[in-house]
Amino acid sequence: MAHINENYLKLPGNYLFATIAKKVADFSQKNPNANIIRLGIGDVTRPLAPAVIEAMHKAVDEMGKAETFRGYGPEQGYEFLINKIIEWDYETRGIHLDTDEVFIGDGAKTDVACIQEIFDKNMTFAVADPVYPVYLDSNVMAGHTGEFIDLKGVYKDVVYLPCTEENGFKAEPPKDRIESMELKNCCFPVPANKKKEHVDLVYLCNPSNPTGTAMSKEELAAWISYAKETNAILLYDSAYESYITEPNIPHSIYEVEGAKDVAIEFRSYSKSAGFTGTRCSYVVVPKTVLAYTAKNNAISLNQFWNRRQCTCFNGTPYIIQRAAEAVYSEKGRNQCKADVDYYMENAHIIRDGLQAAGYTVYGATNSPYAWVKTPANMKSWDFFDLLLEKAHVVTTPGSGFGPHGEGFLRLTAFGTRENTIEAVHRIADLKLIK
Amino acid sequence: MAHINENYLKLPGNYLFATIAKKVADFSQKNPNANIIRLGIGDVTRPLAPAVIEAMHKAVDEMGKAETFRGYGPEQGYEFLINKIIEWDYETRGIHLDTDEVFIGDGAKTDVACIQEIFDKNMTFAVADPVYPVYLDSNVMAGHTGEFIDLKGVYKDVVYLPCTEENGFKAEPPKDRIESMELKNCCFPVPANKKKEHVDLVYLCNPSNPTGTAMSKEELAAWISYAKETNAILLYDSAYESYITEPNIPHSIYEVEGAKDVAIEFRSYSKSAGFTGTRCSYVVVPKTVLAYTAKNNAISLNQFWNRRQCTCFNGTPYIIQRAAEAVYSEKGRNQCKADVDYYMENAHIIRDGLQAAGYTVYGATNSPYAWVKTPANMKSWDFFDLLLEKAHVVTTPGSGFGPHGEGFLRLTAFGTRENTIEAVHRIADLKLIK
Repeated sequence: MAHINENYLKLPGNYLFATIAKKVADFSQKNPNANIIRLGIGDVTRPLAPAVIEAMHKAVDEMGKAETFRGYGPEQGYEFLINKIIEWDYETRGIHLDTDEVFIGDGAKTDVACIQEIFDKNMTFAVADPVYPVYLDSNVMAGHTGEFIDLKGVYKDVVYLPCTEENGFKAEPPKDRIESMELKNCCFPVPANKKKEHVDLVYLCNPSNPTGTAMSKEELAAWISYAKETNAILLYDSAYESYITEPNIPHSIYEVEGAKDVAIEFRSYSKSAGFTGTRCSYVVVPKTVLAYTAKNNAISLNQFWNRRQCTCFNGTPYIIQRAAEAVYSEKGRNQCKADVDYYMENAHIIRDGLQAAGYTVYGATNSPYAWVKTPANMKSWDFFDLLLEKAHVVTTPGSGFGPHGEGFLRLTAFGTRENTIEAVHRIADLKLIK
Repeated sequence: MAHINENYLKLPGNYLFATIAKKVADFSQKNPNANIIRLGIGDVTRPLAPAVIEAMHKAVDEMGKAETFRGYGPEQGYEFLINKIIEWDYETRGIHLDTDEVFIGDGAKTDVACIQEIFDKNMTFAVADPVYPVYLDSNVMAGHTGEFIDLKGVYKDVVYLPCTEENGFKAEPPKDRIESMELKNCCFPVPANKKKEHVDLVYLCNPSNPTGTAMSKEELAAWISYAKETNAILLYDSAYESYITEPNIPHSIYEVEGAKDVAIEFRSYSKSAGFTGTRCSYVVVPKTVLAYTAKNNAISLNQFWNRRQCTCFNGTPYIIQRAAEAVYSEKGRNQCKADVDYYMENAHIIRDGLQAAGYTVYGATNSPYAWVKTPANMKSWDFFDLLLEKAHVVTTPGSGFGPHGEGFLRLTAFGTRENTIEAVHRIADLKLIK
């Protein structure tokens, strides 16, 4: 008899974005003439850069001729793309990588969801709270957590790292292993029979989704020290690095000393080049990042991720890899940067406009996300409903990203300029802040 | 301390196709003038159909304009493609599917490797022997098997279904659950403390990779009965269905009564439309396929696969889904069929030519693969070496697909006509069979 993986049943039934979609659809049906502006889902709206379009047309033509047709490519990706990544994303920042340390994927979601497969089932992991849900959900489904505690909105046996106004929304490493886990960084006491002295894996998203805040090199250095002391691994998602505008915020964790011993880095073209529907990403697994067998033999995670990819993935489409390669051409770089600048201008319009209207706004400086405090301690969902009904603006409730997101909304800068300006005006005009 | 997933260490270090590649590279270096013909890896060589190329150019242009740009698509795939699949691959054969029963993927390798995630860790699965390695390896890595037994070339706690000349290379359901598992379909006795009355999951590849043979509707009906009796699930890989030429071989398992209650079907455009480097596939999970909780509550696997895809995958690229859609246009169907016919003509050239030279050849009638018996009981690898050295032809040793592949070679029909004819001549000219 086939049994299901019951870990899936731990997932709460109502998905954040499905709930939002339903609320918007209901509102839309009742108010068919409302001009709804969507600043909720983090999806880009600007078309692909002309250099990318040109490269794809060329690659499509190659696939139509026997002499230039490409069948199975390397599971790890083509070197023509890997070499550009190393040259432009790393060498320019003084980071040296070998070609076999970069793995091309079909999206950072897949990559961050599947990385947990190469680790032992009995590991303990930490996530920021609030956080991009995939880190958590993928581990829930793989059985790396306990049950969901409805009242608290958290899973048992997961170490949550609260990101609050007090700490600038920055996940901090446990300062003392036992004490910090039990008292500070955990939303509930760790059961006494579980001796969790520290965490094995830490998911860090920098700049952060959803808060839009970013950790500095010094703050990351503290994490690297922690990882080295405890032999933990940092899973570093820098999907939003192209939105960084401040000099002390690193674009890659490998800009920080020692990171190549403890960190795996995830990158995506979704937000840097508008690839949300085009699908390309990469993972950097330096050969110096080690994990251990039960008998304490050190093994390079590079060979494990390589084996995972070779068995469970057959490479990103050739045409798409050529598209990503074009992002690094001179034209491609300029065109993609222009789009990022356009979105960042939107981010500033949201940040400055709402601040002028009296709101407390975080993020939106090194990130396309603004993290807006609700007025008068309103609950996230209540403020979401109010903005939908009164301003016809769709946002994302902060509490959907974790309990410490309560009292905030996430607004994204990926709309058109016109809609962004209009949305800010509508929210300001509600005059909710005295 | 981060620990690795030690299940990965069970995988033998030498990968079949890496070993072949090394042998060919060594030979090539020593014999730089040898004109090597590769009939080893199952990769297509003919360019994409003009209808597919046209559709991709159009989709690329859409991605370059704001009005037609596409961001995140549905994780399950676009309905424009799902509707074509249902119309052409299923309705034409009298099979009715709902749009939410079809999930577009980025390749059947990913799909078949990841399907095990939705099942309970303590399941027992069966695979044909010889078999496409991904079914096995993905389960090894997920911890669903015991150790690899070097001497036997099998993993503990896996039920192998021998495919031999005697049974026409067709995996048969265990006739009596306990007896059959222990004595007939298993390469070694099941430990007494493991009460394996039956298997929970069965991987069936039809037509088979590597043997090129195919099961009839009646033979599949026996599997469906077995699955219904034991509440097992059939994971049916029909990646090669477009090569079927005989009328009683089903293209879909749903052509057989009752399959929609027990079978998940995997399809790929890799071999039917030359998409090995373009990457598109789909999985059919009828809502009527059920598995069970530990407390015996039945749950539809459709919702589990949907959740898996929504969490761990972000959809196949829009451009690629438009490419797959074009396979179903009138031009696309004709052009793709012409390519399949071309490869099948190669398959017949291999089959008929080697049979004329005295070889025993299976497959190559409903499949692009010929399964060739080695002369004089030669070992697979010895015959592989001999053909490389004397005929400069690369093949795949049958033993690389499992112990019951010993004594066979797999030859693929995906070369050019000229090379295929030349390879057969060279092998025949060796006059190895008296």
